[in-house]
Amino acid sequence: MNKFILNKDIDTPLYIQLYENFKVLIEENQLEKEKLPSIRSLAKSLGVNNVTVVSAYKLLEKEGYVYSIKGSGTYIKKLPISDDMPYLEEGDMELMVSGILPVSKDSINFASMSPTPDLFPIEEFKQALVEVLDRDGGQAFLYPEIIGYEPLRESISKFLVENYGTKVDKDQILITSGGQQGLDIISKTLINHGDCILVENPTYSGALSAFKSRGAKIIGIPMNEDGIDIDLLKSYVKRYSPKFLYMMTNYQSPTTYSYSDDKKKELLFLSKEHEFYIIEDDFLTDLSFDDNDKKSTLKSMDKHNQIIFIKSFSKIFMPGVRIGFITLPNKLFKEIIKAKHTTDVSSSGYLQRAFDLYLRKGYWKSHIEKIKRVYSEKYNIMTRELDKLNNYGISYVKPNGGLSIWLKLPKEIDVLELYKECTENNLAIVPGKVFFVDESIYSNYIRLSFGAINNDEIVEGLKILENIISRPFKDKNNNYLPFI
Amino acid sequence: MNKFILNKDIDTPLYIQLYENFKVLIEENQLEKEKLPSIRSLAKSLGVNNVTVVSAYKLLEKEGYVYSIKGSGTYIKKLPISDDMPYLEEGDMELMVSGILPVSKDSINFASMSPTPDLFPIEEFKQALVEVLDRDGGQAFLYPEIIGYEPLRESISKFLVENYGTKVDKDQILITSGGQQGLDIISKTLINHGDCILVENPTYSGALSAFKSRGAKIIGIPMNEDGIDIDLLKSYVKRYSPKFLYMMTNYQSPTTYSYSDDKKKELLFLSKEHEFYIIEDDFLTDLSFDDNDKKSTLKSMDKHNQIIFIKSFSKIFMPGVRIGFITLPNKLFKEIIKAKHTTDVSSSGYLQRAFDLYLRKGYWKSHIEKIKRVYSEKYNIMTRELDKLNNYGISYVKPNGGLSIWLKLPKEIDVLELYKECTENNLAIVPGKVFFVDESIYSNYIRLSFGAINNDEIVEGLKILENIISRPFKDKNNNYLPFI
Repeated sequence: MNKFILNKDIDTPLYIQLYENFKVLIEENQLEKEKLPSIRSLAKSLGVNNVTVVSAYKLLEKEGYVYSIKGSGTYIKKLPISDDMPYLEEGDMELMVSGILPVSKDSINFASMSPTPDLFPIEEFKQALVEVLDRDGGQAFLYPEIIGYEPLRESISKFLVENYGTKVDKDQILITSGGQQGLDIISKTLINHGDCILVENPTYSGALSAFKSRGAKIIGIPMNEDGIDIDLLKSYVKRYSPKFLYMMTNYQSPTTYSYSDDKKKELLFLSKEHEFYIIEDDFLTDLSFDDNDKKSTLKSMDKHNQIIFIKSFSKIFMPGVRIGFITLPNKLFKEIIKAKHTTDVSSSGYLQRAFDLYLRKGYWKSHIEKIKRVYSEKYNIMTRELDKLNNYGISYVKPNGGLSIWLKLPKEIDVLELYKECTENNLAIVPGKVFFVDESIYSNYIRLSFGAINNDEIVEGLKILENIISRPFKDKNNNYLPFI
Repeated sequence: MNKFILNKDIDTPLYIQLYENFKVLIEENQLEKEKLPSIRSLAKSLGVNNVTVVSAYKLLEKEGYVYSIKGSGTYIKKLPISDDMPYLEEGDMELMVSGILPVSKDSINFASMSPTPDLFPIEEFKQALVEVLDRDGGQAFLYPEIIGYEPLRESISKFLVENYGTKVDKDQILITSGGQQGLDIISKTLINHGDCILVENPTYSGALSAFKSRGAKIIGIPMNEDGIDIDLLKSYVKRYSPKFLYMMTNYQSPTTYSYSDDKKKELLFLSKEHEFYIIEDDFLTDLSFDDNDKKSTLKSMDKHNQIIFIKSFSKIFMPGVRIGFITLPNKLFKEIIKAKHTTDVSSSGYLQRAFDLYLRKGYWKSHIEKIKRVYSEKYNIMTRELDKLNNYGISYVKPNGGLSIWLKLPKEIDVLELYKECTENNLAIVPGKVFFVDESIYSNYIRLSFGAINNDEIVEGLKILENIISRPFKDKNNNYLPFI
């Protein structure tokens, strides 16, 4: 224990001194064991009160250096290096964490958030597709501008004002081939090998793949019901000088949690204060089922163009159209254009022209009202049926919007076992585990989405789930010992 | 000169010993100056014949360690590290080398290889687009399989047999959003930060951008009229253990050179022997204007699935359709699927379905015959007019196919100055410089493409060019000294 230098003659409280000692030792990798000494033994060897050690450990935990497991002790939180991240396991798991899940065709698909073809506005979009061909002929199949077809950028600029009260100039909009490509392009622009970035934990696995592919060091910040842990964010920002924070303001994937207005303001303040970008990934803001609780984006509050806003239309329009966009901070304009060109030169000009015409013809509003009606009905059935399963120890926060439920399971249930049993019973679910950046966080969750299934399937699927979780789980690893 | 240890008592010839000495010193970065000692001074200080030094230097040059400049001396060839590559200069040049060129709308555009809308088979493709909507409805806008819409993969497998005599199973084909995306996905799959890769020098700048974006060390191998320098390839393969060689078999960009059959065989042999992949980028094989000189791809000779074949339809069909494909070696299947998913989830299912229908309806053959007719006429006008400019000291190799001429200029002409003068005279050309990996290679070339201009513009444009090169060039850097 000669590693610690405490001085009782100075003003700094002992617990702060101890905290500072640990901080340096952890940052410089000087501690041999992952587990910190027990409170009692350390207090004894240092000749201080237990309370001093407890306070130091609590501060370390608050600042993100350690985590504690009840009844076990306090452990150093390792910065997950991308090379040994847990989402690189063998087999299916490996694909699953990239957002790819093997789903048999007979399954009731609680895994997908994508809309079904009956919700697609095919007639209206077909009209636009044909009209573009008649209007533009071969022009429709030239390379469009790299940044995107100008009239579409105009339409989207208008769309942003009308739907989210957000002003973005058409020349600060880059059309992408879907939201995922937005992530890829931003990664190429901002991430150099070894850079730190911050993400909500858990988060969208497709984003993790894109960041990881660039060699980023990914640091997760726990996602609470009203947004990420801001204290931890502050501490991490100072500690790691991250390139950006990646986040979803509304109906976050997978948790379905939304940010409070206070937290949004704090994020904006911190991003300006500490000069890191915020990547706001928005794919569901439009799907509020409660008119008294309409959600707004972080981008709508962004006065200084600090937020890179990514919009995907895959869940609220049609996935196969492969159109999305990102907004561009002036400073990054040239770099982002280069990255887009390197990625695929430009997105299909024909589809851009058709989507532009679709928006200009004013079809959007009635489309979004229709899908809100349909999804809100599914949401109501979903929550009604889930509430019947209360007594199995499951719980969840009602999102009042979005396309999923983030279901917390009792800790006796092994989520991967549950996943396997569900698959055997033709039920596709997503184990929460795949969305986490590291293993140190409690991950006993599953995500149940209702985007791709009909009302009857919801009822039937949850009956199958009830059946599975009501059976006693095989407990392979425990030994049964008498407790007298 | 005490760095050299030569032993006259052993069997190894002195020049080989000297070569070995230099090799080690260069590889270990032990030589202070870039320039090697002069032949005479080194011979003197070592007490050997001049011939010994000359032979050693020649061997060093052959193996790619040094290059010589006539009348100046011999210089160490530095491995270009991506961070200080010449194609990262400021301003326009920076975009230009990423394949982005600012072209004014009034220009005669010798810079673009892309076809003009009048060549697009709009009627036939429109028929396919509408038929798909009637046939598949909303299904057309679902996410297709990540690897691509199965019937299209089938059609392309057939297309490969019929057009290039190449057998590739439909499950070894990945549909991409154009050829550039193929490069991006392969880069993500194969290149880790710091990996060495080999390219033809000069080569396609969009490929360089994709490789560079992954942190690759890019090594160029001079491109000769019958393909790259194979001896140098052998030496580099041993020296750098590259991940892959990136090449274009026919009408290479920008040189328009094609590989001889012998060189193709050697490439295949070396790739198997030394276990590196070959990325064959094919965008013009179809455009042979001489029926006695029909070109074949390297892939058609590939018995062991070592070649990753990238096909772009942008130049021979329509750029805005954004469809291309790559073939997949079995070993890389899973990794490539993951990379595609991370990039943009999947390419537009709707356009895939339409292109599939277009191919199935048998429209391809007459389309390709039509564009060959048109381009071969442009090619003939282009070469006829260029041949009139013989007396200005320009020269080129006739490719008998493709969409460009690679024009060698007399060395008095400063290519960047020429580029500027052309731009001022509304003539868009591409300075050869932007295609080179390093500066050590002679780059006094321009690329003149005839894809995007009509017959009259070719004649008019070359007249403007003649006007410019016939004027004496400002020679700003030379001092005029009497030579008595």
